[in-house]
Amino acid sequence: MKLITDIEEMQAFSNHARKMGKSIAFVPTMGCLHDGHASLLKKGKELGDILVMSIFVNPIQFGPREDYASYPRDLKRDLAIAEANKVDVVFNPAAEVMYAQGFQTYVDVAYLSKHLCGLSRPGYFKGVATVVAKLFTIVKAQIAIFGEKDYQQHLIIKKMVKDLNMDVDVVGMPIVREINGLAMSSRNNYLNNDERKAALCLYTALMKGKELFENDIKESGIILQEMRSIIEAEPLAVIDYINVCDINTLEDLDKIQDTALLALAVKIGKARLIDNCILG
Amino acid sequence: MKLITDIEEMQAFSNHARKMGKSIAFVPTMGCLHDGHASLLKKGKELGDILVMSIFVNPIQFGPREDYASYPRDLKRDLAIAEANKVDVVFNPAAEVMYAQGFQTYVDVAYLSKHLCGLSRPGYFKGVATVVAKLFTIVKAQIAIFGEKDYQQHLIIKKMVKDLNMDVDVVGMPIVREINGLAMSSRNNYLNNDERKAALCLYTALMKGKELFENDIKESGIILQEMRSIIEAEPLAVIDYINVCDINTLEDLDKIQDTALLALAVKIGKARLIDNCILG
Repeated sequence: MKLITDIEEMQAFSNHARKMGKSIAFVPTMGCLHDGHASLLKKGKELGDILVMSIFVNPIQFGPREDYASYPRDLKRDLAIAEANKVDVVFNPAAEVMYAQGFQTYVDVAYLSKHLCGLSRPGYFKGVATVVAKLFTIVKAQIAIFGEKDYQQHLIIKKMVKDLNMDVDVVGMPIVREINGLAMSSRNNYLNNDERKAALCLYTALMKGKELFENDIKESGIILQEMRSIIEAEPLAVIDYINVCDINTLEDLDKIQDTALLALAVKIGKARLIDNCILG
Repeated sequence: MKLITDIEEMQAFSNHARKMGKSIAFVPTMGCLHDGHASLLKKGKELGDILVMSIFVNPIQFGPREDYASYPRDLKRDLAIAEANKVDVVFNPAAEVMYAQGFQTYVDVAYLSKHLCGLSRPGYFKGVATVVAKLFTIVKAQIAIFGEKDYQQHLIIKKMVKDLNMDVDVVGMPIVREINGLAMSSRNNYLNNDERKAALCLYTALMKGKELFENDIKESGIILQEMRSIIEAEPLAVIDYINVCDINTLEDLDKIQDTALLALAVKIGKARLIDNCILG
């Protein structure tokens, strides 16, 4: 396995690979890898000749009061996991390399960024779209794999790729959960034992929403109220948002026709956790 | 010469060319070609194995009260000029092809867009950066050639390429002028005979600024006042802006050290004309 920190070296590697007719599958991460990432790597290995994974905690997607400084970092452990998952190249640039002095070019997916996490984290998706556009250009990926826990991110990246005519297949992979239902997330590391237990309310609420929908309750108001009362019953949980929305536009739905996205963000202690499920 | 209107066909052509080890030089235009464009094509022919020129009047860079609808278009004439200049491929997509319904992804070079033309044409450079990013991805150019009449545009594209790590060499070419000094522009077509004469005041004012600088006048205020009085003496001319600014940041300079950009935009009849010159 190769570790590359330099942008030009990564581009040269990828240019050479593409000239040799090899396809490049790419898994962008912020490190602190868990089984969710492992499922993306496994898929990447299947789909591409060469598997590149980036580890980069992207400063421009964090707000001034968010957890950029404290975001968990453990490169040694991440490299061991990458190796075990047959990654060919880990791309791990420094923040100053990705954002040299005077950096000022941003990619913005205007409407999709104005919902859900975009409302509580202004500038977040502009930071995400910008870094992914840069990584795609640096890594020259033909296939890129994203987890669907970040459903909105996945949708935004697909839209960016389409709108900017990027030659990349964006593949989404299902949420990986712990045995008790908690969605895998690097931010689960922030939770103490009590908070871990409390965090189960996200999944419980989603399952309740799904059950109601399957019992023919199609009014979002009713579904949301039941879900909200589950979260509110948990003293350690503070709701950021719970929404029933269109799976393509992310606009709120008053009434579900065939399908909808149930999405929520909840703060448990220091951790802001997100989760979702598709109805229908 | 090949004429391509389909995005996938253009990408397939360029992918194939690059696989064959050919370099692609690219000249993006809005058509209505003149000798300024011809100088870019000549340079492109020199620098690349394959010369691609796009003709696309980009709707998203025009403001609601600007001349998108009336912008001069003459594809037949443009194709003849392209052929005479040994263009290999003309890429001429329809607006609906470049901006399908639901398009919402924009590239913004934040600070450089906040000066000169960016102030009088809000959204203009976001539209320019976005279409050029798309065209670069579609055409897969290694070399792209821009005219320096649009000095700010050239600077913004160079910055975008650097910030987003695009593998493109951006080459600037000197302004091409008519024998009387008028900078070549597709918008010169809007001018009647009297307005054509009036339009010479842009060049006259720039030459006056240059002469003052060469006579050791370094205070921008003095230079600007002399230039402004030349334009104001012309009854058909209305100043949009005249600035003395830093050649890299485009920030206004009170006093010139070694070098500066003199840039101006002036309305003559229906035409908004721009011109510039580098001092030092």
